[in-house]
Amino acid sequence: MTSDRLSSTFAALADPTRRAILARLALGETSVTELAEPFDITLPAISKHLKVLERAGLITRGREAQWRPCRIEPGALKDVDAWLERYRRLWEERFDRLESYLEELQAKGKGKKRTRKA
Amino acid sequence: MTSDRLSSTFAALADPTRRAILARLALGETSVTELAEPFDITLPAISKHLKVLERAGLITRGREAQWRPCRIEPGALKDVDAWLERYRRLWEERFDRLESYLEELQAKGKGKKRTRKA
Repeated sequence: MTSDRLSSTFAALADPTRRAILARLALGETSVTELAEPFDITLPAISKHLKVLERAGLITRGREAQWRPCRIEPGALKDVDAWLERYRRLWEERFDRLESYLEELQAKGKGKKRTRKA
Repeated sequence: MTSDRLSSTFAALADPTRRAILARLALGETSVTELAEPFDITLPAISKHLKVLERAGLITRGREAQWRPCRIEPGALKDVDAWLERYRRLWEERFDRLESYLEELQAKGKGKKRTRKA
């Protein structure tokens, strides 16, 4: 059930370490060793996370012999953004409703003041 | 490692059936039976998916005795959108780079024509 691309992307993002790796790679490409430094986990564990991110198309790894730099691939995140697009109106509508409710309250407040004055 | 809220949301979205349920609920609230109709899976299987979505804060279920309508809760999706925000510039920059490269190519083309005319 999770063999489709979007599911792989979401599954890869469902881990704070993998999201932290992406946040680091958003600043620029880096080697695995450098990438592992701030994390309190082993190199094999980092490699496992990188494999998940690579399979989901979120990163690519260079083919250079000595160091294989990791790069973020924003395309898969753009797909998540496109998927979210249809739901954007839901929270925007909710905000609009809240806004008109507040305006209504404000108008009622003004109405009361006017009644008192008359 | 996946106990944080954003990880639960991403994990819940990593399944095409659960995303299809959300797409249906974006049209309006509905009962579980009605929700299950277009899917070729059992009611207990649907209930299991709903529990995952509910735990991730993506849906809520009414407390009415006879039918417990499911509603989409766009707040958790808004959090995903906020998380994506910092990566948006990456694909936008990539597009900008492509655009300026095309402009450069076009300018070179014009330059060549001018040289030929002179």
